[in-house]
Amino acid sequence: MLAPYYLPEIGTPKAQLPTPALVIDLEAMQENIHRMASFFQDKPAKLRPHFKTHKCTVLAHKQLAAGAIGMTCAKLGEAEVLVEAGVRDVLIANQVVDPVKIARLAQLAGQATLIVAVDQADNLRQISAAAREAGSRVGVVVEVDVGLHRCGVEPGPAAVDLARLASGLPGIHFTGVLGYEGHTVLLPDAEQRARQTREAMRALVETAQLIRQAGLPVEIVSGGGTGTYDLTGSFPGVTEVEAGSYLFMDTKYRLLELPFHCALSLVATVVSTPAPGRAIIDAGLKVLTTENGLPEVISPAGTRLAALNEEHGRLEVEPGRTALRVGDRVELIPSHVCTTVNLHDRYYAVRDDRLEAIWSITGRGKSQ
Amino acid sequence: MLAPYYLPEIGTPKAQLPTPALVIDLEAMQENIHRMASFFQDKPAKLRPHFKTHKCTVLAHKQLAAGAIGMTCAKLGEAEVLVEAGVRDVLIANQVVDPVKIARLAQLAGQATLIVAVDQADNLRQISAAAREAGSRVGVVVEVDVGLHRCGVEPGPAAVDLARLASGLPGIHFTGVLGYEGHTVLLPDAEQRARQTREAMRALVETAQLIRQAGLPVEIVSGGGTGTYDLTGSFPGVTEVEAGSYLFMDTKYRLLELPFHCALSLVATVVSTPAPGRAIIDAGLKVLTTENGLPEVISPAGTRLAALNEEHGRLEVEPGRTALRVGDRVELIPSHVCTTVNLHDRYYAVRDDRLEAIWSITGRGKSQ
Repeated sequence: MLAPYYLPEIGTPKAQLPTPALVIDLEAMQENIHRMASFFQDKPAKLRPHFKTHKCTVLAHKQLAAGAIGMTCAKLGEAEVLVEAGVRDVLIANQVVDPVKIARLAQLAGQATLIVAVDQADNLRQISAAAREAGSRVGVVVEVDVGLHRCGVEPGPAAVDLARLASGLPGIHFTGVLGYEGHTVLLPDAEQRARQTREAMRALVETAQLIRQAGLPVEIVSGGGTGTYDLTGSFPGVTEVEAGSYLFMDTKYRLLELPFHCALSLVATVVSTPAPGRAIIDAGLKVLTTENGLPEVISPAGTRLAALNEEHGRLEVEPGRTALRVGDRVELIPSHVCTTVNLHDRYYAVRDDRLEAIWSITGRGKSQ
Repeated sequence: MLAPYYLPEIGTPKAQLPTPALVIDLEAMQENIHRMASFFQDKPAKLRPHFKTHKCTVLAHKQLAAGAIGMTCAKLGEAEVLVEAGVRDVLIANQVVDPVKIARLAQLAGQATLIVAVDQADNLRQISAAAREAGSRVGVVVEVDVGLHRCGVEPGPAAVDLARLASGLPGIHFTGVLGYEGHTVLLPDAEQRARQTREAMRALVETAQLIRQAGLPVEIVSGGGTGTYDLTGSFPGVTEVEAGSYLFMDTKYRLLELPFHCALSLVATVVSTPAPGRAIIDAGLKVLTTENGLPEVISPAGTRLAALNEEHGRLEVEPGRTALRVGDRVELIPSHVCTTVNLHDRYYAVRDDRLEAIWSITGRGKSQ
């Protein structure tokens, strides 16, 4: 159905892309990749970027080429996409509990190094049984609740017990612990963020220590997000960091004043200018998300997004600014990049205002 | 990449579907289709259901088989999907303004009866030029702002002028007027909804009358949504109604106490039960939307959705209720069905708790 004229030619000016278009600023993104890679270059901890942010295997390979040790992902379906694209080391940072999915997991583990988070003994035994049946070995990290109070066992003895069980089960390769400080990554106050992140990582690293004292080797101590990459990434004992959003950033992460650029935008077109000061764009809730607030217009200046309906965005133009005309392009920064990307099928990668590549978001919708 | 074991077999119990799963209750949905079709059976107005709700060509054909006169859609990309699936009469209820898209529109108009909304003279001239070039004829409705204050010209003379221009342009078939009373469809107070809807439709029908008085035939007077289908559908002079959500309903539309069932749910799996009274499901903001509030748990009873993160939902279980266990299924009603559907690649259609069909959501993401 994608007629030939539907995809723009390489070299097309950004202002002539079909809209709504999810546009990567290649220069800004490559700086983000480089900056994050540089940070980890001389650290004991390494970067395992989160696939859930971009869901694009081209971008995963760029991150790996820059030094990432593997990929993190949220869902088994994402792991399948990554393995198919040749990624050899994948950590699923969530529980996989359904019997059919556990069978898929065990089968996939025969094709790549696969590590999954566990926080429950029965689940571990089921994965073990499936791995034996598939003739594979599934890596596991014990998920530890470091303060987010979502999934994970309590730090300390409960984690040691689960690690011990994992180590004794056939088909399981116990690799370490994972703890996500999701309650701290977006704290706007830098000092509070630092203090609470260190508390969380202390609990994780101490748990790893307890497991080692129980005689079990711990290779992986995984934590971190974009908001805490430097804190967690330099915390003694942490071995890898799962940051994802640094690649693109968004209006929410921008508040933290991290050294990364906003590299992803949504380009829309004005489709109607029915009254002075009001302009309607062809972008609504099916191409932008709002759980972190409304996206922000970055071009043209003096323009503000006032509301998003399902298929429309309503702009307000400051008095005294040039009025928008039908056909004008409007560029917005998403307020939550991960959920925004999940609405789109492809990226338009742009350098110097020209289309350089179109990349499929093959992990989009892989929520199973 | 979709391995054979990824799609469940027909006959699979609902409780064993892969999750998160978007599940259609076939019985409930077919009652909704039948009830809406019955309403229009003896009315001068007819139903042209909105594709944006379900984005599935199988469902479009079910609606057409039940008496719908064609389909409404929001985007040119959706119209392309519909025409490819054999739908012969499609109304795009929005403006198409980009030159490349106008060329696509003109080309598509050579393959089916295609009608597009216009509210601007230049746009109309560009469509005319493209249709001449493609050797096709594009149907247009003049969009009238009936109080939503989004797109559309003012009722009255402005609409007559545009209709007159449309009627004189080669390649254009002027068909009538469209006005969406989006400001009234969700008004919870039935009397207020009725009053404001009638005001909106009066403006639309009077505008159609003015156009007729100018000597131009008006075939289409299109309005309506699910919340106003009965008001708009029985308003003298309205010829077609664009309701979409009646097919599935959601927690927001349910407040209106319309005679339609909630027929779409999201089935998730409990992946972690880390503390008493807390259970985490594998469904978050990438499979459910929240702009109309949090979705509502319908099963098991006594369970409430407390928060949605990106990949997780956090449930609270009432004291005294049976605790949820890892692997348990949880069923939720979306709070906004149209944006929820747009996150998913397929429906699992269920009757008597068994999978009867899997249908692709081929219009998903067709936002261009």
